[in-house]
Amino acid sequence: MFVIEAVNPDVDDIIQHKINQKTKPLGALGQLESLALQVARVQYNGNQQRLSSQLQITKPTMLVFAADHGIAAYGVSIAPSEVTTQMVHNFVQGGAAINVFCRQVGFELEIIDCGILQPLTGQTSVIDQRLGAGTHAMHLCAAMGLEKVAQGFELARQLVMRHVAGGCNLIALGEMGIGNTSAATAVMSAMLNIDVEQCVGRGTGIDDATLVTKTQLINQALALHQPALVSPEAILAHVGGFEIVQMTGAILAAAEQKILVVIDGFIATAAALVAVKLSPQSRDYLIFAHESQEQGHKLLLQQLQAKPLLSLGLRLGEGTGAALALPLIQAAVHFYNQMASFDDAGVHNVV
Amino acid sequence: MFVIEAVNPDVDDIIQHKINQKTKPLGALGQLESLALQVARVQYNGNQQRLSSQLQITKPTMLVFAADHGIAAYGVSIAPSEVTTQMVHNFVQGGAAINVFCRQVGFELEIIDCGILQPLTGQTSVIDQRLGAGTHAMHLCAAMGLEKVAQGFELARQLVMRHVAGGCNLIALGEMGIGNTSAATAVMSAMLNIDVEQCVGRGTGIDDATLVTKTQLINQALALHQPALVSPEAILAHVGGFEIVQMTGAILAAAEQKILVVIDGFIATAAALVAVKLSPQSRDYLIFAHESQEQGHKLLLQQLQAKPLLSLGLRLGEGTGAALALPLIQAAVHFYNQMASFDDAGVHNVV
Repeated sequence: MFVIEAVNPDVDDIIQHKINQKTKPLGALGQLESLALQVARVQYNGNQQRLSSQLQITKPTMLVFAADHGIAAYGVSIAPSEVTTQMVHNFVQGGAAINVFCRQVGFELEIIDCGILQPLTGQTSVIDQRLGAGTHAMHLCAAMGLEKVAQGFELARQLVMRHVAGGCNLIALGEMGIGNTSAATAVMSAMLNIDVEQCVGRGTGIDDATLVTKTQLINQALALHQPALVSPEAILAHVGGFEIVQMTGAILAAAEQKILVVIDGFIATAAALVAVKLSPQSRDYLIFAHESQEQGHKLLLQQLQAKPLLSLGLRLGEGTGAALALPLIQAAVHFYNQMASFDDAGVHNVV
Repeated sequence: MFVIEAVNPDVDDIIQHKINQKTKPLGALGQLESLALQVARVQYNGNQQRLSSQLQITKPTMLVFAADHGIAAYGVSIAPSEVTTQMVHNFVQGGAAINVFCRQVGFELEIIDCGILQPLTGQTSVIDQRLGAGTHAMHLCAAMGLEKVAQGFELARQLVMRHVAGGCNLIALGEMGIGNTSAATAVMSAMLNIDVEQCVGRGTGIDDATLVTKTQLINQALALHQPALVSPEAILAHVGGFEIVQMTGAILAAAEQKILVVIDGFIATAAALVAVKLSPQSRDYLIFAHESQEQGHKLLLQQLQAKPLLSLGLRLGEGTGAALALPLIQAAVHFYNQMASFDDAGVHNVV
């Protein structure tokens, strides 16, 4: 369905040489150097002619995917599902953390209703890509039908293509959805065949008793659907969520369009895992923003051989980690474009 | 000499309550929350009346202190001392990493010649606060006389006071000086009475043989001056450097003026250690930007009970880590000022 090519490595040596000739000891900009290499590989894509043009991030766009989860009615979260809609309203009003950070760093922010329980009423800036009014409770039946997965992928693809057509060359993914760490945990456990106990965490801050319930219900869901979990799409349908489906689709669409994708926290990383299983080539386009304290997130990142840029103890979601990472991505672009080389500056080459 | 008051904690509860009422789970913004608390404590300083005004960072200024080190002639670094002057020239031309990052994030950049071997000739923007033409080789004699320490403190104080008078309420400290990790290591070892072997590192990237020489010469310096290392000032004089002295002075001056100070890497953190030993109250004003991979830096940070905002594997100095941390400090300020509370937004209070 998605046609995704790995990045062309033909000019990697030239890019690396340029980084090495900047006025600094070899490798002294650490992770920003590997990030600059990645951005340059994606933007030049092996094309010699393009090497003379500067790297640039244009119209960076934060896509926040919101949805509700049937399992949330069964005591897996600190908050009831109503909070999803309330927070989407807060996004529209501009009062949430993600609004503040996007305004600060220059992300355009778009909120996508992938299927919250109560859609906002009246004229709003929210994009309607609803796949339903919340998923079914996955420990009782499949979260959604398989056709919703295909539909969600296509909606996300159209969304990303619109932004690319408008000049955007970097998207970031955030989410809002009470109960979505339960879905992401189930997806992770099923995709990697790892015990739920190693994947599950406290989400935004549940207590011990709630954690026991959450673990138990996820295990129940996986046991119920075991025979049907035969593909990434089937896993998304049975134990995923509307926002996880569309985030997966957005990642694949961005890779298809050869633009960078910034992955935020646990939920977005679970979507990235599914995307990379469906298309290993898509990994080339992914930048990981924030490593959370959750054991599950650390494991996911290991699987994806990812070292995020930040580790600030965030556990809010919304794309906040991805928003905060943009200045670092821009720093990688700027040092690549602007720093003098040893020759330019007349500095003794310490390499 | 410096008159430094700890931050007044009288309105801490009110600040923390405001942070807790923002539309997010309790503590979900992690380290940005403790940072917002610190900024608010410093800027409100216990004053009820000020609470109605917004937090703000005004005219953030990066001070890069450059100096040379006698020990550099004895094979402790990847580069000769000439590179210090060449890099200062590069700073003036705008081609170094610190220039790029300061332009990006909005730091005003000022370069201070604290005593490089060859001062730049002609009209330049470099501030002349020279204490000599490089220090003496500390393994052969005292790096400088005690009077230079007092003089360096006072020069730094005047510098900081000028910036505060001009409206700056946050400074960051960077440095340039071939050989200055040797001086910082000696200062750390003497201040904390920890073996050089536990403090020393590869600086910007020396090989095994150079590391052996570096360790040996630092040990030799400390053995030579042992009886004289009776105070922080005496340690700075015997095994410090002109830029380390002035960075220490700048930290103390900023604390005296009750403004925030962003501490970059190993050298700046060694200066912070000296400052905090001289005035424990100064700790309240310090924000730590970047944790390097060096064992010595990790130990220093432990001593100062500091958890830096970033860990990107940088080992360039110049203040680059501090520059990259500014957007995170601004994010803390912005969420404190701008995020809606549960009441404002009509969101179910999940606290």
